[in-house]
This record gives sequence, structure tokens and C-alpha cells, in this order.
Amino acid sequence: MSGDTLIVQEVATRDGFQIEPVFVPTAEKIRLIDALAAAGFSRIEVSSFVSPKAVPALADAAEVFSGIRRRPGTVYVALVPNPKGAERALAAKVDEINLVASVSETHNRANMGMSPADSIAGFARIMDSVRGAPVSTNATVATAFGCPFEGDQPVDKVVAQVERYLSLGIDGVTLADTTGMANPRQVGRLVARVLPLVGPGRLTLHFHNTRGLGLANVLAAYDAGARRFDAALGGLGGCPFAPGATGNICTEDLVSMAHEMGVPTGLDLPALIGLSRDLPRLVGHDVPGQVAKAGRPCDLHPAPAKAA
Amino acid sequence: MSGDTLIVQEVATRDGFQIEPVFVPTAEKIRLIDALAAAGFSRIEVSSFVSPKAVPALADAAEVFSGIRRRPGTVYVALVPNPKGAERALAAKVDEINLVASVSETHNRANMGMSPADSIAGFARIMDSVRGAPVSTNATVATAFGCPFEGDQPVDKVVAQVERYLSLGIDGVTLADTTGMANPRQVGRLVARVLPLVGPGRLTLHFHNTRGLGLANVLAAYDAGARRFDAALGGLGGCPFAPGATGNICTEDLVSMAHEMGVPTGLDLPALIGLSRDLPRLVGHDVPGQVAKAGRPCDLHPAPAKAA
Repeated sequence: MSGDTLIVQEVATRDGFQIEPVFVPTAEKIRLIDALAAAGFSRIEVSSFVSPKAVPALADAAEVFSGIRRRPGTVYVALVPNPKGAERALAAKVDEINLVASVSETHNRANMGMSPADSIAGFARIMDSVRGAPVSTNATVATAFGCPFEGDQPVDKVVAQVERYLSLGIDGVTLADTTGMANPRQVGRLVARVLPLVGPGRLTLHFHNTRGLGLANVLAAYDAGARRFDAALGGLGGCPFAPGATGNICTEDLVSMAHEMGVPTGLDLPALIGLSRDLPRLVGHDVPGQVAKAGRPCDLHPAPAKAA
Repeated sequence: MSGDTLIVQEVATRDGFQIEPVFVPTAEKIRLIDALAAAGFSRIEVSSFVSPKAVPALADAAEVFSGIRRRPGTVYVALVPNPKGAERALAAKVDEINLVASVSETHNRANMGMSPADSIAGFARIMDSVRGAPVSTNATVATAFGCPFEGDQPVDKVVAQVERYLSLGIDGVTLADTTGMANPRQVGRLVARVLPLVGPGRLTLHFHNTRGLGLANVLAAYDAGARRFDAALGGLGGCPFAPGATGNICTEDLVSMAHEMGVPTGLDLPALIGLSRDLPRLVGHDVPGQVAKAGRPCDLHPAPAKAA
């Protein structure tokens, strides 16, 4: 894989489905994940081992993991909020667990019911429990680019949290713009600061398109050396604070941008567009992705008759 | 105005309304344009002096120009497709006429019913007719980043058209991504090529968000030295080839990005958000802009009770 390859981690079945009011049937989730793997993803965040009461849409995480075909070359990830979730994830034979704590105290209390320090103390226990298990680990700094309650977060606090993750032996780090507050200059600065600590092979950027800047932020991060990005098919994901706002950055829009820029992704874009066009059937509404509506730039149209 | 100021030319009442199936009442257009001027725009593309049969939505161009208050410091522009349109524009006392010809032969024949060479020959006659009149001129290279019928357009052909415009004495030049086919690398290259010919004070970039890359393309153009951008309130505009696709880049999303990046625009963002939120009443449907739905990043939310 060339050094300029852009790696997309597909998160639609986790970050997308978790906010949907409908329960996507387990068999449909499995079919979609297998189709995504076949389209070439090296990383898929499949589901989340959270409380089924808190997130009923993902209550079938274990069934989904047992139902999917494990494609060689694809890392199947699960989000894990706490030690109990880690146990369930290990039992489900996930390839990687993704831990999450917000840098914002207020956001972590709202999201996790505890302080960030207590979340990270839980990560230490999880790291003890997975030692020797055939599983890799990643941890996410949520609200790294701003908190919807507190606003801007000090860069030094974000960096300290990254360093704490690394000191626990966690393999990879994600900087998450949880509610779409980042801007390209801020992204360039934070990536430049964190990349030397983590390395491009272990750093993931997670952007939401809440304010329309998702792909501009990807461009800034890529130009600063980041190579791995979360994205959701169709731009699923939404935002709890912004009814009608878009969600995660859209996988097929990101892949189209990369390919048009000459940046390889290893992904089959026409296959992704086909899968995205099937999403409204699964979630019951239109999805925000643009390329699935407009086609690729190279999908030309017949000239009008009067132009002949 | 500082050298890093990003100038937005508002085009909602022209490029936005022209594709709407409803006729926005003339009084509403006038009210909106006056409110946009009050929000600080130095340039507004008000309407188009095209055939009322071809674009019935803009049949009231002359009435709109006679009804608006001329705010000092705002340049009121009209799109003009041909010498007859130029006569009507002069009679309406526009400040600037914007001529348009595609670099793609097929697109120009489809859009204008003639070859690009014939369009540009018309521009020469228009330039003769406006000599001495109190009006400035701009000309747009449509499909500069790709044609939906022909695909990629050779950069040399785009540059030759820019040079032809300048040789006619036209004051400003717009490079238009008419159907949203541009990507950031291509934008950076073309801006680097054209900027030395035209200069940042006279070059406008016109992007559509058809494939989700609008603001990423702005970022690439800005970083290459471009300073003036067309945008439409609410992201109005649509695309005739892509039902459901978004239109022009969204003014308030662009302005939010610029302000978050520390780039001044001279525009009152809260006022723009207010005007954007009123657009569904005028056009009868939701509009694609995100910041009007999500609020600015600095518009914080109260912490949930359990986080206290």
C-alpha cells in the first residue's frame, strides 16, 4: 500500500445505525457488513457493546459479530465504553476494541456518566484484561475539536489524553470531532501536534459534517500527514443537537474526492454507491451523501439533442 | 480590507432562484436582496437578463433592479447571456454585468445554443456597447473543471478562454465548476495557473456542492491565493442532472468556515443564518445548508441535567 493511500474505516453500522429510530434487522446488518468488506474495507467498525437499554439499535452486537463472514485483510472493530463491554467484545471475537472518552468533562459525564479520569481508569483495567488476547486496541478522544457544552478544548489537554492512551499501551488513537465543530486550520494544527506522537499508521481522524466542513477537514488533515479516516456510508449519523443536520462524513463522497485527487483508497466506489443507494430502504429516510445522488464526476450524461 | 479577507458574492437570487419551480414574488426578492446587502455583502448577483421564456423564475429582473435600495459599497451584478441581455441590464442600471460561456463546446451549445466562439464574439460586441457606460464587466468560464457531457476540459483551453476575456478588456474572470465536478488538487493547480493572469482582486471561483466537495474546493483555492467566491444562501441551486443533489456552496456554511479559521469576510453571520432559515418559506422546501440547522460552533448547548 502506497504511503499516500487514504484508509477509510467504515462506521455506518455503528455510528450511523446507533442514532436511527428504527431497528435495522440483524440479517440486514450482516449482509451490509459483508458487502462492505467485499468492497475492500480494511477496517469496519461493526457495532458497539454498550448497554442495550442505552442504545437499543445496537442490542444485537454479538449476533452481528457471530453472523458476519470474516474477510481476510479486514479488521472488524467494536466500540466499547467500559470493562463489561470489553468482556462482551472479547467473547464475540472482535479484532479490535475502540475505547472512547471525551476530553470535555461535561461531555463525558453526559455521555458516559463519569469523569474522563474515571473513564480512562476503566481503560487501564480493560488493557489489563485484554493482555495476551488476540485483539488490538484503539482509543478515541471525543470532543477533541470542541464540546457542544463547553466550547473549545485546550490543545494541551487533548495531547495529554493522547499521551495517557499511549502510556497504557493502546495501539491506536482517534481524534474525534464528535459534533462537527472543527475547522481546517484547527485540524491542521492538531494533526501536526499529535502525528509525531502516534504516527500516521495509528492515528485516525473522525469528522462529522454537521456544519458542512467534513471533507474540508479531511483535506486539511490529509495534507498535514493523517492517512486514516472514519466515514459512514451515505453520511449516516445525524447529530443529537441539530435535527436535520448531516452526520458522519460520507464514505462514498470521501472516496470519490480521494480518487479524483489521485489518492488511492483500495475501495470499489461503484459498489459503495450501490450500497448507499440501498440505505433509505434500511433506515426509512433519505441520506445526506451526494455522490450516490449525482454519480461520480466521470459518469457523463448524453448531450441534449439540440446540442448535436 | 486585509489581504486574507475572503469576499463572498451572494448568488442565491440568481443561481438559486433560477432553478426553483416556484416564482418567488418580486417583493420578496427585493426584500431579501436588501437584507443581504445590510448583512454586509460587497457583491450580490441579483438576477439574470435572460429570455423570460427560458427562465421564467427571473422574468422580473428589471423590476427587481428598480426596487432594491442601492447600498453604498455593494456592487449589484446581473448575469447577461447575450447583447440583448446587456442592453436590458444597462437600462436597469446594474453595476456589473457577468457574461458566461462554457469552455466545453457541447455544454455551451446546450446552454446557449451556439459555440463558445460565437458566445465570445457576442462578448466583444457587448464590450463595444458598454464602453463609457458606468458598468464593470466580468466573464465566467463555465465547465472550467469538467463538463457533464464531455468530461475533463484541457487546462490550456480554460487558460486560453481567460486570456481571450482579458484581451477584450473584461474586468474580472470567474472560473465555474458548473456541475460540481472539481476536486481540491485540480482547483489548486488551475488557480495557480490563472491567478497570475487575473490577480486575486479580479478572480472569482464558483463552486457547486454537487458531490459534497464545495468547501474543500474553497479551501484549496483560498490556500492557492484566490480570495473571491460565489455562494448561495442556504446552498440553493440544485443541479439539473442530479435530482436531490445540493446546489451552490452554501453562503453561511462558507462564512462560518472562514470565521472559524480566523479569515475575515465582513459579513454578519447571525443575520445570514436568520435569512437562510426563512428560505423554505420562499421556495417551499428544505434547503441544504448545515449551519442554519446546527448553529455556529460557538452556539453552545446547556449541559444535560445529569452532567451537573
